[in-house]
Amino acid sequence: MKYEGESVFELGELAALARATRHFKPVASTIVGSGDDAAVVALSDPRFVVTTDTMVEGRDFSLDFSSGFDIGYKAAATNLSDVAAMGAKPIALVVALLVTKETKVSWLEDFARGLQACIDELSPTAEIVGGDLATADQVVVAVTAHGDLMGKSPILRSGARVGDQLAVAGTLGKAACGLVLLQHPDKTLAATYEEIVSVQLRPKPPIEIALEAQAATSMMDISDSLSLDANRLAKASNVALKIRRADLLGYQAVLEQAAQSLTSRGAEGVSELDWVLYGGEDHSFLATFPKGQVPKGFRVIGEVMDGSGVYLDDELLPAKGWDSVSS
Amino acid sequence: MKYEGESVFELGELAALARATRHFKPVASTIVGSGDDAAVVALSDPRFVVTTDTMVEGRDFSLDFSSGFDIGYKAAATNLSDVAAMGAKPIALVVALLVTKETKVSWLEDFARGLQACIDELSPTAEIVGGDLATADQVVVAVTAHGDLMGKSPILRSGARVGDQLAVAGTLGKAACGLVLLQHPDKTLAATYEEIVSVQLRPKPPIEIALEAQAATSMMDISDSLSLDANRLAKASNVALKIRRADLLGYQAVLEQAAQSLTSRGAEGVSELDWVLYGGEDHSFLATFPKGQVPKGFRVIGEVMDGSGVYLDDELLPAKGWDSVSS
Repeated sequence: MKYEGESVFELGELAALARATRHFKPVASTIVGSGDDAAVVALSDPRFVVTTDTMVEGRDFSLDFSSGFDIGYKAAATNLSDVAAMGAKPIALVVALLVTKETKVSWLEDFARGLQACIDELSPTAEIVGGDLATADQVVVAVTAHGDLMGKSPILRSGARVGDQLAVAGTLGKAACGLVLLQHPDKTLAATYEEIVSVQLRPKPPIEIALEAQAATSMMDISDSLSLDANRLAKASNVALKIRRADLLGYQAVLEQAAQSLTSRGAEGVSELDWVLYGGEDHSFLATFPKGQVPKGFRVIGEVMDGSGVYLDDELLPAKGWDSVSS
Repeated sequence: MKYEGESVFELGELAALARATRHFKPVASTIVGSGDDAAVVALSDPRFVVTTDTMVEGRDFSLDFSSGFDIGYKAAATNLSDVAAMGAKPIALVVALLVTKETKVSWLEDFARGLQACIDELSPTAEIVGGDLATADQVVVAVTAHGDLMGKSPILRSGARVGDQLAVAGTLGKAACGLVLLQHPDKTLAATYEEIVSVQLRPKPPIEIALEAQAATSMMDISDSLSLDANRLAKASNVALKIRRADLLGYQAVLEQAAQSLTSRGAEGVSELDWVLYGGEDHSFLATFPKGQVPKGFRVIGEVMDGSGVYLDDELLPAKGWDSVSS
């Protein structure tokens, strides 16, 4: 992606920061915003939820495929989803950004707009309350997000109970399919399947739906893959999970046409089921609910059983997906 | 610095994280620690303080001069000081760490030990509650630190009042002098002035003293330089600050011998006063107090006047120091 004008390095940290932060909107929960040594954020009760996630150029994103806007959007979305997966309302983000000596101020502004656009669309109660900007050999975004439990107990991975229903809110496999589309030499593919590609570039975890999931006995963000994250949930809850293959057909179906286009253009190893089971980055929500209490927006894909591990129908499902160090 | 054994990349994220986190100590304020989507931290009141700071290899530290322990220690110290500068008790840190494909697990463990050692020494009420580990082209540490105001108002940069006394807790210029000593070809110098060098490698902001400064009308962490940060405080408070040169003599005196050794070994531009005024990274505290209310541990270096800018006796002091983008 092409950005013009002067670089962040030429302009200097403070002036560049001022250009970025003017795109941010204040919210009521911020008592002291950026500009002091630290920010001060108000809560409904004396507890806060905190999570952090880092994205590295060349590993988590490509500057060829993703605009500054996309990268800002995704950095916010992946962290907001972790906060919401605890049952907490996202309220504050801090953003540490490393840019290269060549990064343009116009890229930085686009990045800032992407951060704010994600907040506006997915979680308008949140604000960017602080950050840090420096130069490095590659672009790195480290976001730390905070949530307010509003008097409720956090929803952990460890609360699933035998007999609960297993359910998903959000997409499965679209982000992985989108990445394959983006990486294919035929550039018309990404344009044809723009909606699928957009999940890879700008994931939209259904934050509001997760916050309505108060009946959930356990919940987590599916960031690394359904199989890997379901295995984590099963282990933390000391239960087995059974995923019904028939309940995944709907997720596969929406990827079918893209898969056919890829296969007909020589792409190898294309499998809708593999994307659904082993693809990461959809940032959907995996949760368990007492029978009959699955809220709107969640789709049942299986159940909680006695034992350990994750089963696809009657086959043990390997914990396979994304490892941020060794993948 | 030499580290042996297998790399973080060879071991994988989860196993490497387990090796690091075993060096961390839990504290009572953490309700949910690392391992879920997010951590949950308890506070004394429904507000939290948050700040973030990033350190980049080759820019903020050198793997030749700093051990993993040093880097972990410094990453914690620089963030704890920002929290304490708000008058808040540090309670929780999250750490995003990027290592290279070559980084050894033994380095990672040393880094983790350094983080915890800093907490133990400077602020034992704090805990590392979460983090993220991934690989990149260079080592990057992004720490986000959180504080508890314990029912008190935050101490801002903007509260200095005409007639207040200006005071410092901690060292001035030692970190800058230490860096020059480390960079000198004569490696015996760093060993001779080990105490000065240690402020560069493992700064020890006097957190406890800052937390006792309840009478402060304004306070901040001196991270970029006395001159730069004093100018920021003056601007935020809409006042002028006068620093008395005579009150800096003590800070210069402790650097004199190192300065002489450097000059006699051909180092150029050596100036104790420059280090005190324009050197960053001491992470000491700059604060203003009503006359006669300067607490123990703070040393008066000047006063707050009507007007704008910072004066050294009667000369305007330029805002000169560290800019993380363009320096």
